[in-house]
Amino acid sequence: MVLAEIITIGDELLIGQVVDTNSAWMGQKLNEAGIRVFQKTAVSDNEEHIIAAFNEAEKRADVILVTGGLGPTKDDLTKITLCKYFKSNLRFDEKVFLDIEKIFKARGREVTKTNRSQAEVPEKCTVIHNSMGTAPGMWFEKKNKFFVSMPGVPYEMKAMMEKDVLRMLKENFRTPHIFHKTVLTQGIGESYLSDLIETWENSLPPTIKLAYLPSPGLVRMRLSGSGNLESEVRQEIAEEMAKLHSIAGKYIYGYDDDTLESLVAGLLKEKKLTVSTAESCTGGYIAHRITTVPGSSEYYKGSVVAYHNEIKTKFLEVDAQTISEKGVVSEEVVNQMALHIKNKFKTDCSIACSGIAGPDGGTPEKPVGTVWIAVATPGGVVTRKLQLGDNRERVIIETCQHSLNLFRKILAGESIS
Amino acid sequence: MVLAEIITIGDELLIGQVVDTNSAWMGQKLNEAGIRVFQKTAVSDNEEHIIAAFNEAEKRADVILVTGGLGPTKDDLTKITLCKYFKSNLRFDEKVFLDIEKIFKARGREVTKTNRSQAEVPEKCTVIHNSMGTAPGMWFEKKNKFFVSMPGVPYEMKAMMEKDVLRMLKENFRTPHIFHKTVLTQGIGESYLSDLIETWENSLPPTIKLAYLPSPGLVRMRLSGSGNLESEVRQEIAEEMAKLHSIAGKYIYGYDDDTLESLVAGLLKEKKLTVSTAESCTGGYIAHRITTVPGSSEYYKGSVVAYHNEIKTKFLEVDAQTISEKGVVSEEVVNQMALHIKNKFKTDCSIACSGIAGPDGGTPEKPVGTVWIAVATPGGVVTRKLQLGDNRERVIIETCQHSLNLFRKILAGESIS
Repeated sequence: MVLAEIITIGDELLIGQVVDTNSAWMGQKLNEAGIRVFQKTAVSDNEEHIIAAFNEAEKRADVILVTGGLGPTKDDLTKITLCKYFKSNLRFDEKVFLDIEKIFKARGREVTKTNRSQAEVPEKCTVIHNSMGTAPGMWFEKKNKFFVSMPGVPYEMKAMMEKDVLRMLKENFRTPHIFHKTVLTQGIGESYLSDLIETWENSLPPTIKLAYLPSPGLVRMRLSGSGNLESEVRQEIAEEMAKLHSIAGKYIYGYDDDTLESLVAGLLKEKKLTVSTAESCTGGYIAHRITTVPGSSEYYKGSVVAYHNEIKTKFLEVDAQTISEKGVVSEEVVNQMALHIKNKFKTDCSIACSGIAGPDGGTPEKPVGTVWIAVATPGGVVTRKLQLGDNRERVIIETCQHSLNLFRKILAGESIS
Repeated sequence: MVLAEIITIGDELLIGQVVDTNSAWMGQKLNEAGIRVFQKTAVSDNEEHIIAAFNEAEKRADVILVTGGLGPTKDDLTKITLCKYFKSNLRFDEKVFLDIEKIFKARGREVTKTNRSQAEVPEKCTVIHNSMGTAPGMWFEKKNKFFVSMPGVPYEMKAMMEKDVLRMLKENFRTPHIFHKTVLTQGIGESYLSDLIETWENSLPPTIKLAYLPSPGLVRMRLSGSGNLESEVRQEIAEEMAKLHSIAGKYIYGYDDDTLESLVAGLLKEKKLTVSTAESCTGGYIAHRITTVPGSSEYYKGSVVAYHNEIKTKFLEVDAQTISEKGVVSEEVVNQMALHIKNKFKTDCSIACSGIAGPDGGTPEKPVGTVWIAVATPGGVVTRKLQLGDNRERVIIETCQHSLNLFRKILAGESIS
């Protein structure tokens, strides 16, 4: 098992000025290459601190990837620190200098003195070309361990990893194949899901790990496996997936990077159906989600957000008497909203909702979080009553997740009981 | 100098499935409280690894904040590991259980066995209430050092930090006063802004730092100062703010946690005006932003998302001849959309937009990112043509930022030249 540690250097990461997206990206790529990221450490622009982190990482990992601190300004200490750590002098590299010169000439400028110093590299390192910037990457080997220093600028680091570093790492290690499959569920809370799949989870083989990743209206479950043969690992994951489906299948709607709106898009295009929405408490969020998908104008015609009752009665022609008798948050009202928008906008399908997002507006009978949704298709109207708790943002997102998934199931012919 | 270390627990962070936004946020908040984040470490869901990280952090830091691993499922090991580290047994906490029960009852459900176990807490810890979820936070003291364990779910951790943890930390340490003020700008790109304020930025006193935080349609500038007297630090920041205003004031719309939708809300409520929206390329996003503000029904009546031209002509009564002659992405069309939705929904104001979000639909004359916006108020209609580049998500967000800021300026009586 090849272990890696990622060390990110930079005060801006510690004070929270910048969110570290680099190490997440690197973690994914290393993982795909069969290298396990054991730890990530963020340290400041400080020689002692960096050296302490190098020392500790060297005990724990086979591969140490370092980002940051390679710029031409005074707070960039990585190169000097690497020289100290590996007891190496600097040498001027003509090829690196020519690369830097080329970048400056393309902008009609001369190389500055500070940028010239970026062509000085530790004698003991192998230089890695930076195709997107001026600071070269550096590769060190020490007793079968590898240190790789790369720029902190995301697009520079990514290009360096993809062009050279991942290849160089794979050339030096025989790595197991690691494979992940993430399952997306909607309609069941994390703890209920855990109870439901408990027996299966407890009997997973030791080579397969399960992790839960909850967010509003969505619980992701990630199955991870590793082994020497890619086909065997994939097979093992597929078998466990099949078992998971037989237990929790009714809650599973997709995998990996799927979204409900993209899955619905696929079904609508396949069946050549169109959709509109009539929203109240979601305030346009469902329409927004639908239209994040490029090309959505192929199946989506438009929406009415009827935030006030008069908009519901005048433009969606919801019966005022019904609102008066049953309340605006009711099955009857949401049913009318769905049918009327469908007819008015001449779409095959529609989604409607009416509820109390909060924090105000709740009553003992209909507390905050009470939402009625309706999905209309050529086959008829399906309605559901939801109870979504009292966090406004979550009520909005979860109403959308419930509605889109109900719509998806109806279009796909899945059971909606 | 009080040093903190942040330890994030979770395999999903190491393999890069999730970007760690928690530690950046925590870093900011600790920084504001005068506590310096010395290191951040991400470790896996593994007892040995977690304990090794605790051991090392204890040597380096006064405060160790730990997030993750507090869920009710089997991969959540933090609590057990804390018990081992502090040699503590668990005890059942009745108050925590009642909190958990309340959350389940609000959704009409009974507490599951696995969630019940979340009410077991280490005897040696002080329980910190989780106002947004089921897992309580835990506070440990050991030889003048403090360990704080919090959930990894961002909104749960943030609420816990803001309600209790930051206060508890400040009560235990004497820290320098650090003060930040963030300025929000719209309508100018980061590098142009940097050029505009260059002279001022270069002459900032050494105790004041400036950071740029760009995102679509918004460039934040954060001024930070530190010192022993709160009043002096605030005074220094105020003076620099005044200078910044005199240079870049036309682009500044708010501060700190302001949002355009909340600023617009304040102005509409103050002037007792109502608003509606007629959207095309933004697909409901403007309506969604407006309705994220609690109580928005006081001034917002509703929207029409006219994604197809037939919805524009039939429902918004945009003249078909105008669309034919000028094109649907034109000043004339967006002007009609704004006036007609205002009249139909009987609101005092309205916002309308028509554009090409992409990736398809562009022409040489009107490339992707071409958007016309219109804002109607009792004073008349103001239109603007925008050119927003070819990233779909950014075109949508930036159209909304432009529209809401134009609306805000008109309502506030600011210059809109």
